[in-house]
Amino acid sequence: MSKVAVILSGCGVFDGAEIHESVLTLLALEENHAEYQCFAPDIEQYHVINHLTGDEMPEKRNVLVESARIARGNIKPVSELNVDEFDALIFPGGFGAAKNLCDFAFKGKDCNVEPSVLKAAKAFAEANKPVGFICIAPAMIPKIYGEQVALTIGNDEQTATAIEAMGGEHVCCPVSEFVVDEKHKVVSTPAYMLAGNISEAASGIRRLVAKVLELASQ
Amino acid sequence: MSKVAVILSGCGVFDGAEIHESVLTLLALEENHAEYQCFAPDIEQYHVINHLTGDEMPEKRNVLVESARIARGNIKPVSELNVDEFDALIFPGGFGAAKNLCDFAFKGKDCNVEPSVLKAAKAFAEANKPVGFICIAPAMIPKIYGEQVALTIGNDEQTATAIEAMGGEHVCCPVSEFVVDEKHKVVSTPAYMLAGNISEAASGIRRLVAKVLELASQ
Repeated sequence: MSKVAVILSGCGVFDGAEIHESVLTLLALEENHAEYQCFAPDIEQYHVINHLTGDEMPEKRNVLVESARIARGNIKPVSELNVDEFDALIFPGGFGAAKNLCDFAFKGKDCNVEPSVLKAAKAFAEANKPVGFICIAPAMIPKIYGEQVALTIGNDEQTATAIEAMGGEHVCCPVSEFVVDEKHKVVSTPAYMLAGNISEAASGIRRLVAKVLELASQ
Repeated sequence: MSKVAVILSGCGVFDGAEIHESVLTLLALEENHAEYQCFAPDIEQYHVINHLTGDEMPEKRNVLVESARIARGNIKPVSELNVDEFDALIFPGGFGAAKNLCDFAFKGKDCNVEPSVLKAAKAFAEANKPVGFICIAPAMIPKIYGEQVALTIGNDEQTATAIEAMGGEHVCCPVSEFVVDEKHKVVSTPAYMLAGNISEAASGIRRLVAKVLELASQ
């Protein structure tokens, strides 16, 4: 049975992990007979967004504490993620992936990945273990791999251009499909970069999870 | 195409709507070709729980604003729920159903249902439109229907006793099944009252959603 680490970035599409994508990832892992353990960086969120109005709220929240809502309390800090204990890694999306796990939402091609997340993800890359990136999370791929990796964030031209400026190879991809870089064992799918509803997001995420697990069992 | 109202109670199992149950409900609705609209009461949460530690946090959060995280912003106050626009209603669970939508978690059989939620749910009962209750949400059924309705919260004896003291008829039920009261068109399933993982919760929720939609189309 494969064991997969899932790194969350908070709880809510506008300032954290996209909730549907995160839950669909956990469901697909179990339905493919894999075990999972959730992780998140123990850092303050970049900001807190009122998801009803879209306005910023005068609050502070912690990424690990809020991610624990999605994980029903069963979550660990990313600093405790030991690559030897896992067969694969998956990053669900949401703005949290671009605001908390890295600062791509603000700095574009000049972004940096949060140190504990970068260290964990690099360990999977160096071990040539498969990693899945959902929605906007693929923006981190060039910084993690340091060489050209085929990936998708759907078809948004501005985002794709920034990713290519970092050295990524962007491939346009419909919501129900995924892009795989077999050499680096990197799988990505657009999910809510393109999805108009939850079942569209589910279609690509199910296929991404199956592909990640297939690569993990090779 | 059936249109279903979904009433959320926050965002997180310990102080709000159970996130997996909520997302699985939305997914099952779409995969059964139904439309949904999320609602939540525009009230302060009973409290805020740190889902990492289980401790109460010195914060205030609003049920509608936090529920909007699960709904990706597309949510309305329960006070705007017009029964004539919907074919059915579903309540996902989580402690929020017993702390925010009613006070069953604190008062047991002497609980009261939040007024805007009670008004909306009674309107579905009076119109004889089907209503689904997941996890601990069935604790509200006796207060909504005011007569004996068959229901389940799994097999927890203390909870079942309190519900029977309010006039409910508790039926023990495994996680992958549901209980239906055909006369009142009330469907319930234990989900995380019993589920050990997300796929177990999904099994009962999928069947509950299908049954609610079947009743709605009669």
